[in-house]
Amino acid sequence: LVKRDVIRVVTPGTILETNMLEEGKNNFIASLYAGKGGYGCAFADISTGEVRACQVEGDVQCLKSELGRFSPSEVLLGGELAGGGSLEDGLRAFLKERLGCVVSGFDFSSVSKQECAEVLPAQFGAQNLELLSLADKPQLQIALCALLRYLGETQQRGLECLNTLDLYSGEDYMNLDLTACRNLELIRTLRAGEKRGSLLWVLDHTHTAMGKRLLRQWVEKPLLSPTRISKRLNAVGELYDNTMLLGECEEALSDVFDLERLMSRIVYGNASPRELKSLEYTARRLPQLRGLLGECRAQYLRDIYRDLDTLDDVADLVGRAVSDEPPIALKDGGVIKAGFDQNLDELRSLVSGAKGFIAGIESGERERTGIKNLKIGYNRVFGYYIEVTKSYLELVPETYIRKQTLANCERYITDELKELENKIFTATEQIERVEQELYQRVRGEVCKNLSRIQRSAGLVARLDVFCSFARVSLSGGYCRPQVDLSGTIEIKEGRHPVVELMVKSTPFVSNDVYLDMNQNRIAIITGPNMAGKSTYMRMTALIVLMAQIGCFVPARSANLSIVDGIYTRVGASDDLTTGQSTFMVEMSEVAEILKSATKNSLIILDEIGRGTSTFDGMSIARAVVEYIADKRRLGAKTMFATHYHELTALEEDLEGVKNYNIAVKRQGENVIFLRRIVPGGADDSYGIYVSKLAGIPDPVIQRAGVILRSLEAGDAPSSHKRKRPAEPEADQIVIRQSDDSEIVR
Amino acid sequence: LVKRDVIRVVTPGTILETNMLEEGKNNFIASLYAGKGGYGCAFADISTGEVRACQVEGDVQCLKSELGRFSPSEVLLGGELAGGGSLEDGLRAFLKERLGCVVSGFDFSSVSKQECAEVLPAQFGAQNLELLSLADKPQLQIALCALLRYLGETQQRGLECLNTLDLYSGEDYMNLDLTACRNLELIRTLRAGEKRGSLLWVLDHTHTAMGKRLLRQWVEKPLLSPTRISKRLNAVGELYDNTMLLGECEEALSDVFDLERLMSRIVYGNASPRELKSLEYTARRLPQLRGLLGECRAQYLRDIYRDLDTLDDVADLVGRAVSDEPPIALKDGGVIKAGFDQNLDELRSLVSGAKGFIAGIESGERERTGIKNLKIGYNRVFGYYIEVTKSYLELVPETYIRKQTLANCERYITDELKELENKIFTATEQIERVEQELYQRVRGEVCKNLSRIQRSAGLVARLDVFCSFARVSLSGGYCRPQVDLSGTIEIKEGRHPVVELMVKSTPFVSNDVYLDMNQNRIAIITGPNMAGKSTYMRMTALIVLMAQIGCFVPARSANLSIVDGIYTRVGASDDLTTGQSTFMVEMSEVAEILKSATKNSLIILDEIGRGTSTFDGMSIARAVVEYIADKRRLGAKTMFATHYHELTALEEDLEGVKNYNIAVKRQGENVIFLRRIVPGGADDSYGIYVSKLAGIPDPVIQRAGVILRSLEAGDAPSSHKRKRPAEPEADQIVIRQSDDSEIVR
Repeated sequence: LVKRDVIRVVTPGTILETNMLEEGKNNFIASLYAGKGGYGCAFADISTGEVRACQVEGDVQCLKSELGRFSPSEVLLGGELAGGGSLEDGLRAFLKERLGCVVSGFDFSSVSKQECAEVLPAQFGAQNLELLSLADKPQLQIALCALLRYLGETQQRGLECLNTLDLYSGEDYMNLDLTACRNLELIRTLRAGEKRGSLLWVLDHTHTAMGKRLLRQWVEKPLLSPTRISKRLNAVGELYDNTMLLGECEEALSDVFDLERLMSRIVYGNASPRELKSLEYTARRLPQLRGLLGECRAQYLRDIYRDLDTLDDVADLVGRAVSDEPPIALKDGGVIKAGFDQNLDELRSLVSGAKGFIAGIESGERERTGIKNLKIGYNRVFGYYIEVTKSYLELVPETYIRKQTLANCERYITDELKELENKIFTATEQIERVEQELYQRVRGEVCKNLSRIQRSAGLVARLDVFCSFARVSLSGGYCRPQVDLSGTIEIKEGRHPVVELMVKSTPFVSNDVYLDMNQNRIAIITGPNMAGKSTYMRMTALIVLMAQIGCFVPARSANLSIVDGIYTRVGASDDLTTGQSTFMVEMSEVAEILKSATKNSLIILDEIGRGTSTFDGMSIARAVVEYIADKRRLGAKTMFATHYHELTALEEDLEGVKNYNIAVKRQGENVIFLRRIVPGGADDSYGIYVSKLAGIPDPVIQRAGVILRSLEAGDAPSSHKRKRPAEPEADQIVIRQSDDSEIVR
Repeated sequence: LVKRDVIRVVTPGTILETNMLEEGKNNFIASLYAGKGGYGCAFADISTGEVRACQVEGDVQCLKSELGRFSPSEVLLGGELAGGGSLEDGLRAFLKERLGCVVSGFDFSSVSKQECAEVLPAQFGAQNLELLSLADKPQLQIALCALLRYLGETQQRGLECLNTLDLYSGEDYMNLDLTACRNLELIRTLRAGEKRGSLLWVLDHTHTAMGKRLLRQWVEKPLLSPTRISKRLNAVGELYDNTMLLGECEEALSDVFDLERLMSRIVYGNASPRELKSLEYTARRLPQLRGLLGECRAQYLRDIYRDLDTLDDVADLVGRAVSDEPPIALKDGGVIKAGFDQNLDELRSLVSGAKGFIAGIESGERERTGIKNLKIGYNRVFGYYIEVTKSYLELVPETYIRKQTLANCERYITDELKELENKIFTATEQIERVEQELYQRVRGEVCKNLSRIQRSAGLVARLDVFCSFARVSLSGGYCRPQVDLSGTIEIKEGRHPVVELMVKSTPFVSNDVYLDMNQNRIAIITGPNMAGKSTYMRMTALIVLMAQIGCFVPARSANLSIVDGIYTRVGASDDLTTGQSTFMVEMSEVAEILKSATKNSLIILDEIGRGTSTFDGMSIARAVVEYIADKRRLGAKTMFATHYHELTALEEDLEGVKNYNIAVKRQGENVIFLRRIVPGGADDSYGIYVSKLAGIPDPVIQRAGVILRSLEAGDAPSSHKRKRPAEPEADQIVIRQSDDSEIVR
């Protein structure tokens, strides 16, 4: 019996098979450990060799945001997170329902301090825990150590790929929870869950799989430091200004393979000869790519120029060793190039010589025997044979040994033929063995350069993302934002980056935004449906976010103060089966925002208080705005779209509140929605007009008009004066009352 | 050069590969033709052999409902539907965005009357078009004919499977549009799009793939005829009462393979020997299955007993011909059973005899030559050889012919061995050919019985669905509904079939429903959030639907008048990128309902008029209710949940309107939601309580309370008197104001 050992356990977080992985998305496995004083969070992608880790202070909400950003496919839970209490239950539900990821079992209690102190420095190539900056993070040590042990146990081999620890701090990045990511459609759309229609879709002009993954990481982790943002913008700006350089970089990048995943597969021994060869092709492009950056001024581009290792020796090695068009499988042969190994070359010429000799035998025997149609053939079962048709049988010499009789001919062998065949067969077996050995030697050499190759891959990814930002900024006519800590957000002629690309039939109407720390903290936006309130607020959030990841923004100009978080409350659908009502979901999200946001945050509220009775909803909406507006309590910059026109009264009562509405133009019976934001509260929501447009029968429309007039005349729910909005200039949507009325453009 | 003809074009609608098809779902291709006087709609599933067709009168909306029900993966458009106008554009957008199906090109104008008259009777086995009931449906003729031609051209072979035309009329089935199917979560859930949590998930206790598909068809096509419904209920009832019979049927069904798709693959020549064999296994179960029904009284069960062909001859043929554990691929050999064909048996014994003889040679030669370790081996390259280690070389006789030299031994052949090898090789080739021929002959015989097998498959599917209904009715404690045309819907202690299964932590609170054609046409439901308004309304719709597909219902008793359609308006999410606002979507759906519903329909409205300003929304909601309540205009049975408490005034103004609300129990500061529906309007929506529960900070809650009191005291939006709801008995959710207050059970 053959002893069969488990050689590898494949779990959702440890997939290496290229066809099971999404190219533009990391496949992380997470290890979370909660102890006194914080959470240790470690994330690894063994398909790319990335390890990121962070010590999270604060409550479980921060942990969830972190998880949402990495969206791991598998998680290990330890310490208080595996305590069986409500903390674990809640986290497990979140992991399963929101992230759809698997929780695998692992016993964290078996991880000792001793083990951490031994394993971690060895893995990440440092003398001790201090040098890894892990000494003061005991929870993180355990999380990391558990993760490495789990991976070692499932993979049953070394984890050489995971040699660099990327330790980051939550304070480096904008607070962006899963709800905001979803609502702003950063990675995929809300309805269809597709990339098309998301911000990532707009920004992604990358040419490499590494760039694609890095871009996604950046979109989910906007920066907080104006200096780092400006450095990214400088790099993007230089490529933006020098379109020739940009084009050349893009061209060079488009020939670059997925170095990170390639290396993982090579290290783990799963790479085919073709994959090994593609490492060479990619390395060959690096000198040219690096050369392009020699004259750059932006620091981040200069850094790439300085640090990009062009891996010439690796390329040379593979170039010399592996044939130019190797087969997919090693055992198919022909993998090692001629000239690389003398022994192999000799064996090969032996085989080809023998084969040539066989061809020679054919003509020789034909002449010798006089059998004109004598031919030498080969088949898998009988090997080489001489074939003679029945009509020539009397000419067959005695030395021929009959091997097979067919309907129309006989097949023979001779001693000479057999000897040659023997030689060929023996040499072929040897060739196979020698090729195997040589290939493993080359692979081993390549693996020794793992960290150099990983570093180059990382730099290529950065350049790719800078190019992608420059390209979308050029093609979209974006401007470079001014980023500072002034507290003021001022956007001139801003556009929604996604909507302007999706809806091409009508030109997108740009709008201005002005929010500051004083008189313009809260914008209350009223106005008719379909006129663009949601688009306006989302545009603001997306422009702020784009600036903080280092991209230009769709506007004429933008002065943007850094925000420490973006919070959103937008729509919601019933989740009947879990027993949560729309209103409960809505209020939970509002509560979360009020707890997490600071005066430096940006809050987007699209209709709150709608899932309850009119008075209740209005009261809650007003109390929330008052709370946010109160500088002692919160004082965050806020955009609030509402159908409670009654709330426009707050402008007079509260400092920092300003009313805005969507301009509308009336022409006789026609109503034109202009999609332009103007100061002041709305005077009408045009709900009945829209209903008519939607096809509600005329009797209903007429009756609704009568009811509306009596409501407005009789018992108005609040008595404050309404302001008329400023008269608009441009115009957009036309609602015709009848077909013969004039069409307005 | 080999001439390569296209042998088959695989399109989304013509997939036969089992692994690309969903087991419980048909894969339809549709052909639609619009001409004067109506639409011809033809649907075919070539993987199961079903052809359904319908002539649709009425507008394009009916066509869309029909398409929604079949949800084809590929569509052909002809006549006015391919005219390039707005009709085509709208339909194409619907097909692409709502159904996600492909529109393939086909030139309908090439289909002549002549072709229809020739092709259709021939395909469906009738003398002429009259006998197919197609003579008066010219549009449908063209749609069918085009579909058959398209399938013939892509498949490049006969369409023997599609031999039965199932012609139905739209008047046979309940009007159920795509919006209602989605909102009621019949097939999948709204949020996650999963089967788990849908009505189908609750009802599906089927044991066969055919039953699974039929169940899905039934759920999407509830019946209108009380007689047909009662017959189905009788069948379900008999199985429900006779649990022994039910269990036996289920056991027999669970061994039945997917006969429909199996037969399609056999006919198209794609079936593996194993698949052919599984046809036998299934047929062998049929006599037992049929036998179980011999004593049944319900007509539909007796019909199955009478009509079920147990296919004994087919089972016998396959049983005799195909081995009991055949290989997956025909070329692996061993497919045909010993004893089936004398010639094959002889060839096989020849091979096995020769192989035995070779074994004999080994011991014979050992003895003869004195080479103790002489052995006979076989390899693919050299065939049979005699192996002698180096130490015995001097004992090798001269008659041995050296074939190969290895490091440690030499390999030889002898004339005797060669002759045997030759025999084996030649016979093996013959065996392969004979097996192929025999297999094709058996397959051909099976195909001749296609329509008998299809008929049996259909009957098995019906029985499977009846069993599934009986099983869920038993395990869920359902009752048999009384179905009539009285105009009254009366449900006692009804439960929501899905929610009661999903939320197991708390017992489901049942509720009564009473709607009729007179004083109780419209139920206006107010009350707090999370208290179950949506669940109550959906429960009603689902119970009505379940009864009309022939299933028992989750209630103590139910007297249900047939409804001709169920219409819903529930929630909606923004679709920013296509430029449609929430409110526009909402109003379009309301308009569609007002146009399509009749006085015999059931309408479910969950919050309308919320996407606009308070007054506009209230006016529209009221006008819509007035319109529906008006018997001259519509007069449909309607359930309307609203947060506009102001609408409860309608009870006094309009005939047929009744107010309901969700019972609430106050105990000091605590509020208990009882989830029980009671007559009367709500006095409070408890929005602020819920907000507190959701975690909104205390200052906001307190301030909202102050604002609410001033709103109620000052400018109340409407002045009608509010009724207090009846005092409830049971209780459910407890909201505690503070931790030390008493807990109420």
